Amino acid sequence: MKNRRSFLKKVAAGTFAAGFFPFSKQASAGEVKLTGALIHHVFFWLKEPANQSHKKKLIDALNDLLKVETIKMSHIGIPAGTESRDVVDHSYSVSYMVMFDNQAGQDKYQVHPLHLKFVEENSYLWKKVVVYDSIDQ
Amino acid sequence: MKNRRSFLKKVAAGTFAAGFFPFSKQASAGEVKLTGALIHHVFFWLKEPANQSHKKKLIDALNDLLKVETIKMSHIGIPAGTESRDVVDHSYSVSYMVMFDNQAGQDKYQVHPLHLKFVEENSYLWKKVVVYDSIDQ
Repeated sequence: MKNRRSFLKKVAAGTFAAGFFPFSKQASAGEVKLTGALIHHVFFWLKEPANQSHKKKLIDALNDLLKVETIKMSHIGIPAGTESRDVVDHSYSVSYMVMFDNQAGQDKYQVHPLHLKFVEENSYLWKKVVVYDSIDQ
Repeated sequence: MKNRRSFLKKVAAGTFAAGFFPFSKQASAGEVKLTGALIHHVFFWLKEPANQSHKKKLIDALNDLLKVETIKMSHIGIPAGTESRDVVDHSYSVSYMVMFDNQAGQDKYQVHPLHLKFVEENSYLWKKVVVYDSIDQ
């Protein structure tokens, strides 16, 4: 794993990493604690989980959805190969995490034309969606 | 909401924001796309959800847990006051999101003395835990 770069170094906006990483290295663990964000984490269960073209269509559509202006940070993922434990749910097909500055940002996103279009064009792909919205404790 | 600072500006390591934000402003939406991370998102349902001292004890313990060295980014939260929709689960008590560089980082975390101590000392507080581990699609 030594030759894997930190994901923080791999953040898409390369300039971000360049500006940031020298500082975070000085910090101890829990280096970056996000505060003031609204985290919107969505888990999709596809109707046909083994259908790779369905999976690709959903992931492509989620990438397009990132154009919504109030999204500040994002991650599109699939289940990790972590240990199977009772509490770990590896059964979903695709995860989609976006962060907003605040609830107003999330509210705008919900009614944004790109979001409405995304749901209209892709909802036939999934059988179940679970959403968790979290703000600072 | 105008006078709320961006959560990106509020990131605990102040130097992070200073180095980063000028660049992210140049980007359009979906400003920062995290790649190469393993996102470990845990949702806790307390046995006594209305017991504020239990909630505080869990949150304090989660904050202590951030000392584990392989954690690169974190957020500790509670349900947001977003719109009630069928797909949104607002029923959990506390959310805990940590990011690792890779699965090795998560594996080390699972068996870390601080994590084992956390579970041993606090598991009596919750009745249910759901964990989602996601890596890049």
